[in-house]
Amino acid sequence: MIRFENDYSEGAHQRILDMLVDTNMEQTPGYGMDYHCDNARKYIKDYCEDENLDVHFLVGGTQANTTVIASILKPYQGVVSANTGHINVHETGAIEATGHRVISVDSEDGKLTAAQIMEVYDNHWNDATHEHMVQPGMVYISHPTENGTIYSRKDLEEISQVCNELGLPLFMDGARMGYGLMSDGNDLSLPEISKLCDVFYIGGTKVGALFGEAVVIRTEALKKDFRYNIKQRGGMLAKGRLLGIQFEALFQDGLYFEISKNAIKMAMKIKNAFKEKGCEFLYDSPTNQQFPILTQDQIDKLAQNYSFQHWTKVDETRDAVRFCTSWVTEEKNVDKLVEDIKKI
Amino acid sequence: MIRFENDYSEGAHQRILDMLVDTNMEQTPGYGMDYHCDNARKYIKDYCEDENLDVHFLVGGTQANTTVIASILKPYQGVVSANTGHINVHETGAIEATGHRVISVDSEDGKLTAAQIMEVYDNHWNDATHEHMVQPGMVYISHPTENGTIYSRKDLEEISQVCNELGLPLFMDGARMGYGLMSDGNDLSLPEISKLCDVFYIGGTKVGALFGEAVVIRTEALKKDFRYNIKQRGGMLAKGRLLGIQFEALFQDGLYFEISKNAIKMAMKIKNAFKEKGCEFLYDSPTNQQFPILTQDQIDKLAQNYSFQHWTKVDETRDAVRFCTSWVTEEKNVDKLVEDIKKI
Amino acid sequence: MIRFENDYSEGAHQRILDMLVDTNMEQTPGYGMDYHCDNARKYIKDYCEDENLDVHFLVGGTQANTTVIASILKPYQGVVSANTGHINVHETGAIEATGHRVISVDSEDGKLTAAQIMEVYDNHWNDATHEHMVQPGMVYISHPTENGTIYSRKDLEEISQVCNELGLPLFMDGARMGYGLMSDGNDLSLPEISKLCDVFYIGGTKVGALFGEAVVIRTEALKKDFRYNIKQRGGMLAKGRLLGIQFEALFQDGLYFEISKNAIKMAMKIKNAFKEKGCEFLYDSPTNQQFPILTQDQIDKLAQNYSFQHWTKVDETRDAVRFCTSWVTEEKNVDKLVEDIKKI
Amino acid sequence: MIRFENDYSEGAHQRILDMLVDTNMEQTPGYGMDYHCDNARKYIKDYCEDENLDVHFLVGGTQANTTVIASILKPYQGVVSANTGHINVHETGAIEATGHRVISVDSEDGKLTAAQIMEVYDNHWNDATHEHMVQPGMVYISHPTENGTIYSRKDLEEISQVCNELGLPLFMDGARMGYGLMSDGNDLSLPEISKLCDVFYIGGTKVGALFGEAVVIRTEALKKDFRYNIKQRGGMLAKGRLLGIQFEALFQDGLYFEISKNAIKMAMKIKNAFKEKGCEFLYDSPTNQQFPILTQDQIDKLAQNYSFQHWTKVDETRDAVRFCTSWVTEEKNVDKLVEDIKKI
Repeated sequence: MIRFENDYSEGAHQRILDMLVDTNMEQTPGYGMDYHCDNARKYIKDYCEDENLDVHFLVGGTQANTTVIASILKPYQGVVSANTGHINVHETGAIEATGHRVISVDSEDGKLTAAQIMEVYDNHWNDATHEHMVQPGMVYISHPTENGTIYSRKDLEEISQVCNELGLPLFMDGARMGYGLMSDGNDLSLPEISKLCDVFYIGGTKVGALFGEAVVIRTEALKKDFRYNIKQRGGMLAKGRLLGIQFEALFQDGLYFEISKNAIKMAMKIKNAFKEKGCEFLYDSPTNQQFPILTQDQIDKLAQNYSFQHWTKVDETRDAVRFCTSWVTEEKNVDKLVEDIKKI
Repeated sequence: MIRFENDYSEGAHQRILDMLVDTNMEQTPGYGMDYHCDNARKYIKDYCEDENLDVHFLVGGTQANTTVIASILKPYQGVVSANTGHINVHETGAIEATGHRVISVDSEDGKLTAAQIMEVYDNHWNDATHEHMVQPGMVYISHPTENGTIYSRKDLEEISQVCNELGLPLFMDGARMGYGLMSDGNDLSLPEISKLCDVFYIGGTKVGALFGEAVVIRTEALKKDFRYNIKQRGGMLAKGRLLGIQFEALFQDGLYFEISKNAIKMAMKIKNAFKEKGCEFLYDSPTNQQFPILTQDQIDKLAQNYSFQHWTKVDETRDAVRFCTSWVTEEKNVDKLVEDIKKI
Repeated sequence: MIRFENDYSEGAHQRILDMLVDTNMEQTPGYGMDYHCDNARKYIKDYCEDENLDVHFLVGGTQANTTVIASILKPYQGVVSANTGHINVHETGAIEATGHRVISVDSEDGKLTAAQIMEVYDNHWNDATHEHMVQPGMVYISHPTENGTIYSRKDLEEISQVCNELGLPLFMDGARMGYGLMSDGNDLSLPEISKLCDVFYIGGTKVGALFGEAVVIRTEALKKDFRYNIKQRGGMLAKGRLLGIQFEALFQDGLYFEISKNAIKMAMKIKNAFKEKGCEFLYDSPTNQQFPILTQDQIDKLAQNYSFQHWTKVDETRDAVRFCTSWVTEEKNVDKLVEDIKKI
Repeated sequence: MIRFENDYSEGAHQRILDMLVDTNMEQTPGYGMDYHCDNARKYIKDYCEDENLDVHFLVGGTQANTTVIASILKPYQGVVSANTGHINVHETGAIEATGHRVISVDSEDGKLTAAQIMEVYDNHWNDATHEHMVQPGMVYISHPTENGTIYSRKDLEEISQVCNELGLPLFMDGARMGYGLMSDGNDLSLPEISKLCDVFYIGGTKVGALFGEAVVIRTEALKKDFRYNIKQRGGMLAKGRLLGIQFEALFQDGLYFEISKNAIKMAMKIKNAFKEKGCEFLYDSPTNQQFPILTQDQIDKLAQNYSFQHWTKVDETRDAVRFCTSWVTEEKNVDKLVEDIKKI
């Protein structure tokens, strides 16, 4: 069985393993105050071209989302998110557990638009009973989205402008950031994301690391006491250097971007194979997640040798499924899959 | 300006005022441990035909909803509600503030169906990643709903049966209970509601009292330590007898039901007037809230002498508005309105 | 049985009842937006000599404490309180239920000192691991305290100054405010309290009203969106005018202060009676709560005709008990008690 | 600078690193559903001699404490803990953030006694106003404690019996479990702990692992849906096998116990050195944390070459400090320290 069911089925890039092994017997202070974390912070700030950023390392995505969002919202505020957003679907109510509603906005492709954000805001404030309703307090987007789609520079500029005007901090979930940045057609870069978002994170778990997400905070008001929030939400790793080392390895000379390309290349091979077979796609994704629409018979055939995820029923005869690639997906496995797609 | 904008614009029934005045200098223990509360509890249990019920008096609806729901759910569970449910729309995220999601289900008319509840449950448990999603933990319905509609006995029996099968406690918000029970076509009674729901409340604020909701708990497991929950959520009134006295007045000889009829009679007069005028309605409500669809011109004309609530835009030329009646709505005001409706 | 067990065993002052009866059939907007609330707000601001104050009416003390505190603290902050503070002892963890710790400071007499606040602050910030500890975020005091003691002007000025310097908002629980202001030896006034605290409340429940606390906010940053907090915490009364009317009655011509004097006069009679009998006191209270230390025999004798509260064991043979008076305590009952005290 | 400031300054045992490297390219399902986690679960259940246990792997201690405690308590309940307990001191209010109070009990040496637990319980339930107070809902102890002390078998049997009688689940924080089990004088074993506690965890972070705590649940009622809790609190690692692999390495042939011995041996060397020097100790610890009481001069001398932690001021001239050893503390460093202790 060859696994395409998610983008976290293997361990870490060899360079990370090597560094973990090499540094194993070092004695360092705990909780992210070591020199590996400092190095990693510096590399990331350099790549973002902004030395005033705050960078924190957390273990996982749900933790990062919860910690950031709960640190920003007032008790009566909610976070605006696409209905497909990870925080709205796959975090077991972690945001609500901190006391806040996810204000869900219907999205076709996983993206929010500036117009939608404006509409949520206006609907709230134009309602005579707005004090009886959850106040929109910030905006959450993902890049790439859960559906593999990406924001263009223009998209993000518009969203950022609207958020600024409305006083809504903009938070980007970058659990798959590398795959967005390296995708065909992407015209966003870390410096731009860093300028346009108030806070975002660069995902390691799905892009080469064993685990870890680098939360980057640009806006001054959101930086204060963030480490208290990390500790309170259970995200402050005792041996914090484990996170520093991983991001050091990923960012000291651009490894993060380099390995992300593999996922895109492999995903495009799979995409093209399904296209050539005449399959439709649920979303037009330029990133590492592909959502072909298949018949049950096609699904059954592929399921004999490959694991992939059922996504949603499309019509009476067809379902959308998800194939994921990653930084470590092996070309020989993809080639085998491509051959088998031809036969379905 | 004659007010039809809500059902809480006046004070209380005279009999309540009289009792408050008469008992004012009595010295009683606090926090609902007085004989007035005992009396009221007894009357309500009698009307429900079940001496094993627990009855608690809380100040308001949001407080009652929050206290009940937070007392039932486990941290990772949410409460299933129609999208129009009060807890989903008009409580400023009070449920989320206790850590729980409102699992919203689209509803045309404010009602949930047994089939919808089953579907939410199945969708959750059939999803391979259900541990990553908020687990449905209970069901919230309103009778009447926010849209003035009511559940039939058959509706409620089906819902109750599904909830029992699925292990989901059923909670009925009865903020306007009297208006449901006294409406034309209603075939539910307090004893039935009491048997079919695990917990419900009988609203006083909108039906004759200054304030107050009587929470009735049938299911043994939900009774334990409920008073701790009341206290923690800020709902334990020091002079608890004020609540007891009001429900004593309302239930010692059926005043609650008697005065509810007035709201229905007045609402039907208004409904018929709009009908005769040829107006459509957003919902077909047999209770004290009526939702006629009017043109802007019609709205402007009526707004000169009457206050009522804008509800929603219906199409380019028309909006739905809400007229509320109550136990205290004066017939002469309604007659005047009826005359004016004829002229729009 | 004559009750001295608490200060909320009767109803309301006759003038409040009269106003409730007189205004009963008025139609007003809900949720505190009516002219009675406006009047009451104006009266209170006048008495505080500050037109820029925000005044909100909430139903009860636990609700007021919870709503104010949760509106101020960041998630990782706690509220500094005397160990005897109401929020630390008698609110069933309501503060914790909003996510915050009560940082308890040992107090002999129920009061906090400026030095203690400074010490808590310094202990936190001087600890190398302070990010692993709850950060002091505000200060809660009561005037009078749960032990009947009061702050002098000098006390409060020192506390206020320290709080300002340390950036800790100062919140005063004034559930018994009237009894503090009217007590012998008090040198604080509403205008001073209003200047020295960031937010405080004037208790109605224990001083003449059926229920209700008037939350007064001076500090601009704490005013924003406070009504959302009220609604979310279940404290926004539909018929908000009931609160407005009561504070209107209490503050339109100083009734609040006038009736508070009765409690003090009656308490001093009781205090003197115990003193003359040679009893010691647990606290030297100039307000409406008296804590004489009695033998079991003395307790038993008084318990035959009077209800009062057991407070704490003092030594092998004696216990402290609490006698409460209030605005409505009848002199004939107190005289009877005084006679009986002579006989123990 | 040689570090004795904590027990997490190095990485992991070589065998763990080797396994991580060896398994790196395996493709496994996520979220703890892989065969490494299964293996580790089996090993731990074998060591506990109970096949009915549930074993879950979480990343860190605060996360484990929060997730377990929030999964057990009802909203109005608190967790009983020694005042020195980690949850009461060093988790930035993580427990409160889930809505619960830590009910702190004064402890001389970090341990709770059965009598203290009984007293907390009785004090609560004997108080007439207990519904206004946080109800004790479970008991939290640490073995070893934050002060290095350990529970004897008799201690734990008494506590367990009291907890059973009172219906309070007993939770043991075993962040340093190995150092407790391997200490001189310890007469507890994993099977006994497993029988006497309702839930406990075996710490990996401080005992050989990069990170990770194994939560072991014996009591049936506490097992239900625990994975939802893990996910909601941000503790469900995507590459869950990383935790499985580490506990597999630690428990497949007793490595965990073996390496724990080193910490004890090294700690006893340090303890004896201070003893011979005539130093007193703040606590009499048989485990890996030692708390000698030193003069400022002694502290300054040792601080030249060793990092250790200031603990508390003892008197005008002396402070208690903490020296930690661990599974990886090198004997040559300890010998050097011992020599230098002789010179102070």
